[in-house]
Formats: sequence, C-alpha cells, structure tokens
Amino acid sequence: MNEIRNIVERKAALLETGDTTAIMAYYAPSYVEYSLAPPLRQPGNGGDPAPLEKWMATFEAPPRREVTRLEITQDGDVAFATSLDCLSAVPRGAAEGFRLCRVTLGLRRIDGRWLVAHEHESVPFEMDGSLRASVGLTPPGEDQERKVRR
Amino acid sequence: MNEIRNIVERKAALLETGDTTAIMAYYAPSYVEYSLAPPLRQPGNGGDPAPLEKWMATFEAPPRREVTRLEITQDGDVAFATSLDCLSAVPRGAAEGFRLCRVTLGLRRIDGRWLVAHEHESVPFEMDGSLRASVGLTPPGEDQERKVRR
Repeated sequence: MNEIRNIVERKAALLETGDTTAIMAYYAPSYVEYSLAPPLRQPGNGGDPAPLEKWMATFEAPPRREVTRLEITQDGDVAFATSLDCLSAVPRGAAEGFRLCRVTLGLRRIDGRWLVAHEHESVPFEMDGSLRASVGLTPPGEDQERKVRR
Repeated sequence: MNEIRNIVERKAALLETGDTTAIMAYYAPSYVEYSLAPPLRQPGNGGDPAPLEKWMATFEAPPRREVTRLEITQDGDVAFATSLDCLSAVPRGAAEGFRLCRVTLGLRRIDGRWLVAHEHESVPFEMDGSLRASVGLTPPGEDQERKVRR
C-alpha cells in the first residue's frame, strides 16, 4: 500500500516539473485514459509523452497537482486508488483555472513495479440543463468544515 | 473474470427495471461514488437506494444502460473494470438525453461475492473556455468505423 501511495504522490509531484518522460515512466505501455478533456477514451500509445506535453502547453505554467483523500484497495498484483486532486493551473487565455477533480487509478504490478494501467479523471456536470462542467466544487466535508470555522 | 463481467452487465440491465433495491445489492455498503452530477464525491450510505431513486425520478422513464468495451483487470479479491456505457435516458424537461459515458468500477470480493466498492462515471468537458460537458461524443473507433461504412 505504501509503495502505491508513494507512486501516486511522486507522479503527482512531478507534474509541476514539466518532466513528461519521468511522469510517463509511471504508466504501463498499454494504459487507457479517460481524461478531463475529450476524446472519451484515449489509449496510452506505448507511453509516448507527446500528448501530455501538448496538454501541458495549454497552460501558462506546468500545473501543480496535490493528491487529497487518497484511498487504495489492493490484492496481489492489482489495485485501484481513488483521490480528489487539486490542480492549480490556469489554461492560457482563461480567467480562472480548475480546482478539484476526481481521480480513479487502476494499477498493475508488472515485473515487480506498480504501474498505472488506467486513469480516469473528471469533474461532474450540472444536471440543470446547462450541461456546465462543475469546475469550482469543494468536497462536502470541506464545505462543512468551512461553515464550522466561520 | 466471467463472474465480474456478469455482475457488471446484470447491474446495468437492472437499471431500466427501476428496481433500485436489486441494483444496490451489487454495491458494498461502504462504496464511494464519483457520479455524473455533483457533488464531487458521494459515500454510499450503507446501500440506501433513496439517492438512486431520486436520480431515476429526474428522467421521463428509468434509463436504459448498455455496457460496451468492458475490460476487467483482476487479481485475488480486487479488480477494476472500465467501460463506455450507453445511457438511453432523457431528463425531464430536456430536449436531448445523454449518450456515452466513461465508467470505472473498483470491485472487491467480500465473503465470496464480488461487490462494487467504487464507481466513477463521467463525460469529459470542452477545454475551449465554454466548460461545456461533452455529452454527445462517440468513441474514436466508432467514428472511424462510420467513416469506413459511408
């Protein structure tokens, strides 16, 4: 569990360095991504860092990622991990950046190393007919904590 | 693997029957959901079917769910499953319904039964500044198949 926790947190910390090759070393060559932006489903292309580099270039600076509420479930060589990640990032030309997104990782231990075989990142969207992505949400617990603090 | 496949497909098929109690029997009491609608993170409340009933009531009729591209990774008592699900559903008062969403399930075998411990459902959103949820996407493979068919 600690090994997986380290991997998830180190991978996240690497984002702001912009070192896409080091980040991609945490992914299985055959990984599949459900990312924040379209398309629906993106195969990992053998760990090619080019798509990640392209995504990073859409921001003013490499985003900073902080993993919160990480929960890991593991048996044998398979695990899944859930978290709420804080992405401090302002897309080029945008007034505001994202805040929290939900992340689910599917991990496999291959040749003794834990690798990300699947990554699913998202924000929910409003069901009020606007279809607007809910980019400004905080988790329910934090809202309550804030209320208590006031 | 076949056991997990059956569970994922049976749970999906149950949706259009509107039998929320039967559906909730596939979830671990402690499951955590990242759903299409806010909030960011929803604890399972011990398998209470009330939130699912409330969600179903926002549609003209119980949605029909078809699981496609199901891929399962399992070892011991832990598994994760990914799919693109077709939700045929029109929300009350809306002109159009959803189409495909991405689904990642985290599963655990508890007392010999596979249960959903985590469910993450989403659509991506447009990174063009509109923040609009991308509800009308088809997977890249299908687009290509359609082009070939024309």
